[in-house]
Amino acid sequence: MSDRGQYVAYSFYRVDPAWRRLPIEERAAGKDAFAEAIEAFAPRFAHLRAYSCTGVRPDCDFFLWKITDNYDLLGELGSALNATPLAGWLETPYSYLATTKASQYTSARKPRKITPRNSPYLVVYPFVKTRPWYALPHEQRQSAMDEHIRIGAEFASIHNHTTYSFGIDDQEFMTAFECDEPADFMHLMLTLRETEASSYTERDTPIFVGRHVPVREALARLDGVGSLVEDHG
Amino acid sequence: MSDRGQYVAYSFYRVDPAWRRLPIEERAAGKDAFAEAIEAFAPRFAHLRAYSCTGVRPDCDFFLWKITDNYDLLGELGSALNATPLAGWLETPYSYLATTKASQYTSARKPRKITPRNSPYLVVYPFVKTRPWYALPHEQRQSAMDEHIRIGAEFASIHNHTTYSFGIDDQEFMTAFECDEPADFMHLMLTLRETEASSYTERDTPIFVGRHVPVREALARLDGVGSLVEDHG
Amino acid sequence: MSDRGQYVAYSFYRVDPAWRRLPIEERAAGKDAFAEAIEAFAPRFAHLRAYSCTGVRPDCDFFLWKITDNYDLLGELGSALNATPLAGWLETPYSYLATTKASQYTSARKPRKITPRNSPYLVVYPFVKTRPWYALPHEQRQSAMDEHIRIGAEFASIHNHTTYSFGIDDQEFMTAFECDEPADFMHLMLTLRETEASSYTERDTPIFVGRHVPVREALARLDGVGSLVEDHG
Amino acid sequence: MSDRGQYVAYSFYRVDPAWRRLPIEERAAGKDAFAEAIEAFAPRFAHLRAYSCTGVRPDCDFFLWKITDNYDLLGELGSALNATPLAGWLETPYSYLATTKASQYTSARKPRKITPRNSPYLVVYPFVKTRPWYALPHEQRQSAMDEHIRIGAEFASIHNHTTYSFGIDDQEFMTAFECDEPADFMHLMLTLRETEASSYTERDTPIFVGRHVPVREALARLDGVGSLVEDHG
Amino acid sequence: MSDRGQYVAYSFYRVDPAWRRLPIEERAAGKDAFAEAIEAFAPRFAHLRAYSCTGVRPDCDFFLWKITDNYDLLGELGSALNATPLAGWLETPYSYLATTKASQYTSARKPRKITPRNSPYLVVYPFVKTRPWYALPHEQRQSAMDEHIRIGAEFASIHNHTTYSFGIDDQEFMTAFECDEPADFMHLMLTLRETEASSYTERDTPIFVGRHVPVREALARLDGVGSLVEDHG
Repeated sequence: MSDRGQYVAYSFYRVDPAWRRLPIEERAAGKDAFAEAIEAFAPRFAHLRAYSCTGVRPDCDFFLWKITDNYDLLGELGSALNATPLAGWLETPYSYLATTKASQYTSARKPRKITPRNSPYLVVYPFVKTRPWYALPHEQRQSAMDEHIRIGAEFASIHNHTTYSFGIDDQEFMTAFECDEPADFMHLMLTLRETEASSYTERDTPIFVGRHVPVREALARLDGVGSLVEDHG
Repeated sequence: MSDRGQYVAYSFYRVDPAWRRLPIEERAAGKDAFAEAIEAFAPRFAHLRAYSCTGVRPDCDFFLWKITDNYDLLGELGSALNATPLAGWLETPYSYLATTKASQYTSARKPRKITPRNSPYLVVYPFVKTRPWYALPHEQRQSAMDEHIRIGAEFASIHNHTTYSFGIDDQEFMTAFECDEPADFMHLMLTLRETEASSYTERDTPIFVGRHVPVREALARLDGVGSLVEDHG
Repeated sequence: MSDRGQYVAYSFYRVDPAWRRLPIEERAAGKDAFAEAIEAFAPRFAHLRAYSCTGVRPDCDFFLWKITDNYDLLGELGSALNATPLAGWLETPYSYLATTKASQYTSARKPRKITPRNSPYLVVYPFVKTRPWYALPHEQRQSAMDEHIRIGAEFASIHNHTTYSFGIDDQEFMTAFECDEPADFMHLMLTLRETEASSYTERDTPIFVGRHVPVREALARLDGVGSLVEDHG
Repeated sequence: MSDRGQYVAYSFYRVDPAWRRLPIEERAAGKDAFAEAIEAFAPRFAHLRAYSCTGVRPDCDFFLWKITDNYDLLGELGSALNATPLAGWLETPYSYLATTKASQYTSARKPRKITPRNSPYLVVYPFVKTRPWYALPHEQRQSAMDEHIRIGAEFASIHNHTTYSFGIDDQEFMTAFECDEPADFMHLMLTLRETEASSYTERDTPIFVGRHVPVREALARLDGVGSLVEDHG
Repeated sequence: MSDRGQYVAYSFYRVDPAWRRLPIEERAAGKDAFAEAIEAFAPRFAHLRAYSCTGVRPDCDFFLWKITDNYDLLGELGSALNATPLAGWLETPYSYLATTKASQYTSARKPRKITPRNSPYLVVYPFVKTRPWYALPHEQRQSAMDEHIRIGAEFASIHNHTTYSFGIDDQEFMTAFECDEPADFMHLMLTLRETEASSYTERDTPIFVGRHVPVREALARLDGVGSLVEDHG
């Protein structure tokens, strides 16, 4: 669907704590097979990246950011991951689906391609506006979004990758921001809280802060074995 | 109840991740028995179809779309599936019940028969309108629905199969659309979001995008073994 | 409490899917003991009936409709069922408690006795009105309920068994209707949706459609073994 | 904190159904140890009582009503119960914490001491008022509460033990009423539903009806073994 | 990020009841390893403290209060704890992330450093204001907060450690108060409930009351073995 835009999906994983009771070799084999499946699929995706939530979010350990033109590739990857031994111990508490399209609030004509900037952190959350927002005149919405965009531009190290989920998932938007430091993003959101557009927010949770890491590092943190930071602990 | 319309039901299944730890032969036998039960019942239903959610929805792996004149056939199928070994590992996080009836907003006099178009994707979700909708004069509701129907008609590849659940399940409607590509449906819903009828939406989630597949393919994706796409992974 | 009315309770059961992995003899013994306990208690209740939800509701397999003058009998039955082997695998996702009393909207003076009509289906759901309903003048509420009762009377095959839960459970009412066909009840509820009384509905879910069956048939459908419909599958 | 009032706490327990699959001796030992811990702590509490929900509530089997001047005693009892074998199979789906204080709506000057009346039933629920209630002039609140108190006084067999949870638990009040028969309490609450104070209710669920029993009887009903009512079943 | 403020995080733990069925030596080893990991990391945090909820909260056993300049240290600690045997039996029902910044309602210019006062109790909860709050003129918000701060100051034994979560977690603020006695905090919150600022509260639950203890004591209470209060039971 290259003329239609890209599919952008996020899958959140949580390992059953009982997995940590397995012998270390069995855990290592499970992590290897999962990482190999990700690595095998990566070239077929526009982008396929891993983010760790270990030690911060209560409900997930890591998540994948998946970008592709081909919807069915999401199912193929899911099936391949289900064939790994780790899948016998993984739950997916959240998974979000969205697509790109040309924004109606910028001068863009074509669906934007999502290009990760390789920042160390990604903040991502589902977003729903209140119904009255959609009854506002277009000029008022444009003006409210202009304010939003203007404030966002003042935070130069923060990159917005918002996509659209209307009708294909439970939220309207998937909001995603890469940043250099989570506290920077807090300051942006605190500033935006007083804007007119924010007053039309129906729901903007759960909010996930992910640490960009190689998928093998995200998996290493599941049981603290083989992590790059292990010897600092 | 052929003069009363059809029962239209959707059952969503999620396999316990621990099932994936079973020996491959035991998993294969479980999938076979489940598929055989579906295949044995298919001729007794008007339609009995499978859709995969693997890799996309966090809370279910596949779902069945069941259409029949005979309510009790739903119970018989449920009992037969409970007799298969896979039923020891399956949960049904969602199940929805609806019936057809003549729409009050079209010129139809008789309950429409639901006829799947064999599109590759089915988008389905439970739907509840706000109570003030029902207090509007009939003319205003007719006019709002006319707008909805007119916009929908502009998306010729999208087919609407909405049914009625008042009093027999937790939603008012089961909204179901077949389409050629999920992104097309996103564009339709984005357009509809600004209509008057949409402003009376109380709830329209969870939204499920299913990939139409043979039931054996839906089951193959549970553990990635025997899937038609397996060798592409 | 015969001068106070009757207690009317509904208990919903869901079997752990893992129970289906037990040897068939162990399952049969568990079902037998549960059925025997029900049969032993039935004479002590005014009514004690079973309804199957297999194949329709996602969250329960069957439910009991229990009617008695003696509150403590509910605890005794619960304790006796806990002594059966099936209780090691049963969850009760829902249970509802209500009592009868004279309705303030009919000319009845004494608490109505609930008398099941033996219809094949029972539709039951907890019900809460909005707080503004209770601030309406009594005449307006009477008039709104008159409309409700008049419409209900046009559906002669549907029998209303509503009871009262104020302060003794999480809902205000337990609404229960026996009917010959679930689709008939959908038509009644669709018609009522436009009445004034309906606009004061705060909550009317979850809605359960039960198929009246002998308790042994409800249990047979848990694993599809011994069901009366087994050989039709 | 005798000059500050008493801590009043309710802990709700639910046994894992799998516990019922243990050998009867192991179950008996688990129940004995739990009962012994309760009995050992009872003299250190002002009151420590057990109530059974078996056969009625779907989400708990029994609860403890704990009254003490010493907050840390709650932690000590919790730790002691965690040391019993039954704690390997018990969940606490709910637990509520409150304190006594002098009511602002009566002429009392000192925190009331909570004194159970030994009625057979206790109805208990968390309670939150809407925020606009707190913006009403004190005279209007006084008048609304006077009406509440006057109606309550007409139900002489019902005893109110309401306590305060502001800031120390998720509700504002813990409402608790002892009564002779649950249906009596339904009639009181039905009457109160039309009062002005009730219109400011934000939340008053879940509502629990407990049967006062010795703790050993509450435990006996978990598996129906050794219950005082066992031979009536 | 010393010029940006500190990260302040709270992680809540609940042990799987089945852990209590393990041999006592295995439990002791699991508790030791967890405590050692905490003790090893403590010097790298500004503060790293444990609080017990045993016997009071239904959904968690203890929590950690973590304060650091270095976001990634939260992930490192999480990974190290995942490597301990206890992590095979621990769930984290809640976890909250916040940062310090200069308050806009006081004369402070620099982000406050959070300095625990070593009080015996910590009350902590996530907090969200209603959107209309943010549309109030700054003077009105200042005046409302002045009232709040003035009332808080009258409770000299209660110390406020509020931090900011906008955009990096599901709440706007993490409100935290150290106090000498939970009942004192109830009186403060009861007083604040009538202030103007409180009327703009959207959500302020769940509320946790933690007892400050050494981490080994928090763990001892999981199974009541080795607790400092064990011999008082």
